[in-house]
Amino acid sequence: MSGSELELLRRIRLRAGDAGGGRGGLRLGIGDDCALLRVKPGEEIAITTDLSIDGRHFEILTHPPEAIGHRTIARGLSDLAAMGARPIAAFLSLGLPARLTVSRGKGRTWIERFYDGLLSVAEANETPLAGGDLAATPLAVADIVLVGTVAKGRALLRCGAGPGDSIYVTGALGGAAVGFRQLTAIARKQSGRQVRIPKRLEALLRPHLYPQPRIPQGLWLRSRGIATAGIDISDGLSTDVAHLCEESGVAAELEAAAIPIAPGATLEEALHGGEDYELLFTAGPGARVPRRLRGVSVSRIGRIMPRRTGSPMVALRTQDQVQALMPQGWEHFSR
Amino acid sequence: MSGSELELLRRIRLRAGDAGGGRGGLRLGIGDDCALLRVKPGEEIAITTDLSIDGRHFEILTHPPEAIGHRTIARGLSDLAAMGARPIAAFLSLGLPARLTVSRGKGRTWIERFYDGLLSVAEANETPLAGGDLAATPLAVADIVLVGTVAKGRALLRCGAGPGDSIYVTGALGGAAVGFRQLTAIARKQSGRQVRIPKRLEALLRPHLYPQPRIPQGLWLRSRGIATAGIDISDGLSTDVAHLCEESGVAAELEAAAIPIAPGATLEEALHGGEDYELLFTAGPGARVPRRLRGVSVSRIGRIMPRRTGSPMVALRTQDQVQALMPQGWEHFSR
Repeated sequence: MSGSELELLRRIRLRAGDAGGGRGGLRLGIGDDCALLRVKPGEEIAITTDLSIDGRHFEILTHPPEAIGHRTIARGLSDLAAMGARPIAAFLSLGLPARLTVSRGKGRTWIERFYDGLLSVAEANETPLAGGDLAATPLAVADIVLVGTVAKGRALLRCGAGPGDSIYVTGALGGAAVGFRQLTAIARKQSGRQVRIPKRLEALLRPHLYPQPRIPQGLWLRSRGIATAGIDISDGLSTDVAHLCEESGVAAELEAAAIPIAPGATLEEALHGGEDYELLFTAGPGARVPRRLRGVSVSRIGRIMPRRTGSPMVALRTQDQVQALMPQGWEHFSR
Repeated sequence: MSGSELELLRRIRLRAGDAGGGRGGLRLGIGDDCALLRVKPGEEIAITTDLSIDGRHFEILTHPPEAIGHRTIARGLSDLAAMGARPIAAFLSLGLPARLTVSRGKGRTWIERFYDGLLSVAEANETPLAGGDLAATPLAVADIVLVGTVAKGRALLRCGAGPGDSIYVTGALGGAAVGFRQLTAIARKQSGRQVRIPKRLEALLRPHLYPQPRIPQGLWLRSRGIATAGIDISDGLSTDVAHLCEESGVAAELEAAAIPIAPGATLEEALHGGEDYELLFTAGPGARVPRRLRGVSVSRIGRIMPRRTGSPMVALRTQDQVQALMPQGWEHFSR
């Protein structure tokens, strides 16, 4: 390992282990062949991995490095939230062009700013960075692994929804799509250089640049045991409702008027936008679902129906009609 | 998700879950937001991640797809072996150019052949593929996560070596370097096309293309409790001995004549070659270390000494002299 890489790893290592505050299950972090984690009796482990790639999940020239770090770990935490799991450790495999690890003048390096964004979210969610890998690559890639714990047999799965259940969503939808649309417009104007975000647009861009994983809401739902199924909205509402219906063997009808639309977003963006990282969950007819959960609104947006051949798996009810809602969110090999 | 991606995932999912034979701790595999794993009371969890990238850890045109899949998971399993952990699940984040996922004529696709190589090693080591991520990328990248279990407080760490311990290594060293050298020469001759490996060179290339992670040897060492420290030789003997000395706060003296050199390799290749994935471990003076461990030879190659300022951390003894052995293996940001 080169001197600069060792120095970089030393700095990351110093900060990374602190995030858990010693409360989690991490027993051995960065520095050996593996990290070691402990779980309490009665708990099981939830693991998820998410790959983020320059030009696909982010753009080096468009996104601030802090936002890329933030989004990288938020994706993984959101998967834990969807299961109702409590994060105990994160692992990051990072491939970067060497120029992003080198300091130019007095400014902080790209990689330092990336870790700032990532570790801020890790710290806010009490998740130590326990290990990972680092390599020089022509294309920037970041694969995040999140490990969480959940009471045995109590994880919120995609497959538990039944006819008669109501469908709920946290927060508002389409905000990430609005932010992405705005950011793309700014990038086009400032083409070729690292994008500078005007102050007046910061709030509008925030849902895209700095999405908040719904860990507290997921933990609440799991601990109360009222949700029958859950998923996070990463690919877009239309796609993620379809995933949930597919795994549960049911159909869904959404009410257009009930869908919480983020400021500046259209209904289309709320339906298909993706990357909002809100929680979508179902609960039985008798369940008491609060209007707010740990500071975030909760909306009832539709209901689960029996699956019938010839009928759409997901339908959207508007004032005039009920029509099939086709999944139009993120498709990994098609865009 | 596109139809072809769904179909691909369905095929992977069918095969992936089988590898554990239902004996491991995997409770929920591919298909939900997270995978769920259980561990027995008294066990802790070991986790490692390894990033492999086209042009750096493999070459799409040079390496057979099966070998790339094999090497991807062997790297992670080797980290578990070094801790004496038993694998219970693997996760794969895979980014591939779309052309590698598409069938050309009747032949099997690149991605299918890649999974063949990967899942063969997974099956041989009773490790189900429990999840991961898939994306279209201009550059092929594969990040593997391995999860294993080990009795609480009993993992083989890098930091336990003490003065007076002997240093051992499994198998022979330099074989991967020989294979890589030969493969590079073949690739140069056949430039521009997918490399075809002549039958007569298969055995010589095997340590590079299909390295065997030393899981059974690691489990044996851990269960007998005779090793004081351990690491796998991924970066090269000179570099990995230095890692072990660094973490243990000791020095090491290796005997050149005792180092097991693979067929066709030079001493230099055995010292610095890397990617042999053999185990390097230390044991106290009274320990009974067998000459063979689960079918693989074990060699005593040196001893641990106190660290002294002014003396080299790692030294190599030849017939004539003792000289400093500088780490010359893999450096992530320098080649």
